[in-house]
Amino acid sequence: MDLARELGVSTATVSRALNGSSRVRPELAHRIREHARDRGYIANRHARALSSNSSRAFVGFVIPYVDTPAYSAVAAQCARLLSADGTQMILTITENDPRRELDQLRDLVATRVAGVVLSPSTGILPGTRELLQDLPVVQFHRGCGIDAPGVFSDDAALGDAVTRLADLGHRRIGYIGPSRSISNGARRLAAVRDGAAAAGLDPDALAVRLLEPATDHGAGAARELLHRADRPTALVVGGGTLSLSVAREVRSSGLRVPGDLSLVVYGDPAWFALHDPPLTVVSVDYPELARRAARLLVGRIGGDGPADDVLLTSELHPGGSTGPPPPGA
Amino acid sequence: MDLARELGVSTATVSRALNGSSRVRPELAHRIREHARDRGYIANRHARALSSNSSRAFVGFVIPYVDTPAYSAVAAQCARLLSADGTQMILTITENDPRRELDQLRDLVATRVAGVVLSPSTGILPGTRELLQDLPVVQFHRGCGIDAPGVFSDDAALGDAVTRLADLGHRRIGYIGPSRSISNGARRLAAVRDGAAAAGLDPDALAVRLLEPATDHGAGAARELLHRADRPTALVVGGGTLSLSVAREVRSSGLRVPGDLSLVVYGDPAWFALHDPPLTVVSVDYPELARRAARLLVGRIGGDGPADDVLLTSELHPGGSTGPPPPGA
Repeated sequence: MDLARELGVSTATVSRALNGSSRVRPELAHRIREHARDRGYIANRHARALSSNSSRAFVGFVIPYVDTPAYSAVAAQCARLLSADGTQMILTITENDPRRELDQLRDLVATRVAGVVLSPSTGILPGTRELLQDLPVVQFHRGCGIDAPGVFSDDAALGDAVTRLADLGHRRIGYIGPSRSISNGARRLAAVRDGAAAAGLDPDALAVRLLEPATDHGAGAARELLHRADRPTALVVGGGTLSLSVAREVRSSGLRVPGDLSLVVYGDPAWFALHDPPLTVVSVDYPELARRAARLLVGRIGGDGPADDVLLTSELHPGGSTGPPPPGA
Repeated sequence: MDLARELGVSTATVSRALNGSSRVRPELAHRIREHARDRGYIANRHARALSSNSSRAFVGFVIPYVDTPAYSAVAAQCARLLSADGTQMILTITENDPRRELDQLRDLVATRVAGVVLSPSTGILPGTRELLQDLPVVQFHRGCGIDAPGVFSDDAALGDAVTRLADLGHRRIGYIGPSRSISNGARRLAAVRDGAAAAGLDPDALAVRLLEPATDHGAGAARELLHRADRPTALVVGGGTLSLSVAREVRSSGLRVPGDLSLVVYGDPAWFALHDPPLTVVSVDYPELARRAARLLVGRIGGDGPADDVLLTSELHPGGSTGPPPPGA
């Protein structure tokens, strides 16, 4: 690399400095970045071109699934934005399998992608962290504790939903959400517990059912909760696919919404407005999440310094599916 | 390439033969393919490795959008299946822009992808056809008249829906669907017209509104039809995103379904079951469409001969949103 020769340092050092690694002395890293900027150097176009036949750079986009509204929206936006930056996206789907994830990331590193946008699997392998050490990486939607900035939803609106239900008089509130072993599952559960505590309820008294991702046990969990003698008078769901199956189970239970049961779901308000009454929905602006992730990755590839996590504010869209608990409940 | 050396021909000839190009004499092509098979040779692993550092092959997956249920489901399945075959997928999104499509395909060819799965833009450019001439290509969902096999839905269930509505007594039937300039738009309109004719109705008497893809004019078209003096007593929608906006517009019109208006939509029955009553839905098995497309591409990369188009059977899922027209209509 010309840059390395001109500065009299190794290409590895230049690469580390441009990727914001902490393994380069701050003063040297600064000098390398300044020099790179003066030279109009853009890391992804020149240092890491995937093939000698191509002037384009490639980035990896590594996600557990793509056929959910969240991941498909983020994939679409990221591909659009990166493409505007002259970069194309290699999409790999781990199906939440840490071994496959590591294999796919090894392939991407071997083909010298300029960077990786990663939504990690549940049980990321130790080798994955090492592999990604010197590559510009941005995490999104889920984190895995690697040393890379991430873009996440704060999911605080789930807590607001619980607080509002408590304010309406609900004391028996159920929550069905993704497993705590996923970082966003843990964050959503924490938000729900915080919301209960804020309203003066005991968080441990919530009827909580946590499910592994992508297994469609939402209906089963809802059925179980709704058949208890002390069934909840309100149900909050913390995932998009879960929400659809829980809403369908509630419909087939014959309970009236919100007369017998208040219901708050998670996902795209446009779809849940098909329900009668329209469901109250906690939503996240996925296109914005994608924009932030793409911008962060392009910045890191271009040599920006360390970056902080981005936490997007989730929103509560009131529908007509919440009300006071049924009399005598 | 070992294969070329062993056979005493050029690598280009081997590559053409394995890709089923007509530019290699049939007898020679046969001999090359036989030899390749004997050697357990799989074209995409060896002939077209994207980078000398990688043992993996890449294919391009070029689609107009990914954030629709159809495209996200197909992208997910294709990535899964190709990955099982040792192949990774470069996802590019044309946003239905023929110029961007051509640029992206040029990039993919320059990076020597093993093949391309393509859902073409509406107005594919002539250069695109030439570019793809010697590459294994599979079209899906939409066709563009290039010389490559495709996997499509027959959409005949849209016609069945119209026939059933006519049998229920409907004479004023509206259809809102994608523009005829897209191959699947033309096919869906033809199915609807066939369905009307089969029931003895004049296809030209249908109230038809065709819309450009991805513009969300579904609500506007529905509003216009429902405010006519001779408003339709039944509405059929021929696209997934259109269906959501039309269903929401019907809801806000205050018309009762199916008392005042029968409604048939297109897409995923699971989502449209949120509606009360559950909507009658024409659906296509997108995961199966993806399986067929991936299998076809792997076959072509592996040197299979010419292949026919695959037409998947669409299905009509009866819900509760169709009934006889209102009395006096």
